[in-house]
Amino acid sequence: MDILHKVGITKSSPEKVYQALTTGEGLRGWWTQDTQGEFKVGGMILFRFKLKDGEGAIDMKVIELQSAKRVVWQVAGGPEDWIGTKIIWELRQEEGWTIVLFKHEGWKEAVEFMAHCSSKWATFILSLKALLETGKGSPNPNDFKLDSWE
Amino acid sequence: MDILHKVGITKSSPEKVYQALTTGEGLRGWWTQDTQGEFKVGGMILFRFKLKDGEGAIDMKVIELQSAKRVVWQVAGGPEDWIGTKIIWELRQEEGWTIVLFKHEGWKEAVEFMAHCSSKWATFILSLKALLETGKGSPNPNDFKLDSWE
Repeated sequence: MDILHKVGITKSSPEKVYQALTTGEGLRGWWTQDTQGEFKVGGMILFRFKLKDGEGAIDMKVIELQSAKRVVWQVAGGPEDWIGTKIIWELRQEEGWTIVLFKHEGWKEAVEFMAHCSSKWATFILSLKALLETGKGSPNPNDFKLDSWE
Repeated sequence: MDILHKVGITKSSPEKVYQALTTGEGLRGWWTQDTQGEFKVGGMILFRFKLKDGEGAIDMKVIELQSAKRVVWQVAGGPEDWIGTKIIWELRQEEGWTIVLFKHEGWKEAVEFMAHCSSKWATFILSLKALLETGKGSPNPNDFKLDSWE
């Protein structure tokens, strides 16, 4: 089972969105301010999130990088339901818009946490869109809170 | 294939969220201002949306109503991919939060339009959350635009 999202970004380009997905500065601008690691294929990126009662951690292995086209990460560390799943980003230009196709692939069960993550991904993808369109995203800890435990 | 979302709403109750899902006044406050129909089981609700180049139409048959707990609609008219799919809302109270579980069930294929609808549902569910928490949602035509053709 997969989580899917799609947004169009205006005043941008696949190259610029690709930068926001594949560099520390970019990722820190929309997902989480605490992002470190190796951003090349085979490298590991460590994402850390401030939550109400502690810290969340996601470690992503970079599986594939196609400049301005496609980025694939595999989850190496994080919530149990996430381990082994893949995050796939596809970018293309369409009539002045950069189309971002997102897939979080390989969920074993449609648990409530999958529903939460689907909504939460939406808010982070809107943060990515805002970063590109306005220069200002809402990365954790300034992310939009959807639930009591965040 | 299903679209899933989950949000928590504060300063509300399952009863109030249920009102926003089962009355004309409620639905006009977060989904689309042009909402008419019969809101009882077996009735049809007609949702109309202003788009950049015309109008969108979704007709929902009300299948199930469990006060403050569960609402099920079946799509009778609308985009081809939507016909026959179901929209299922489940509500519960949890430590001062009203939990909203959403499922758009029965997509035949993981088409790009499904990815768009997943993101778009997220923005409307955030609109529902805002309506309950602040008194003001963002129903169409004031909805958050995600793509060039909206």
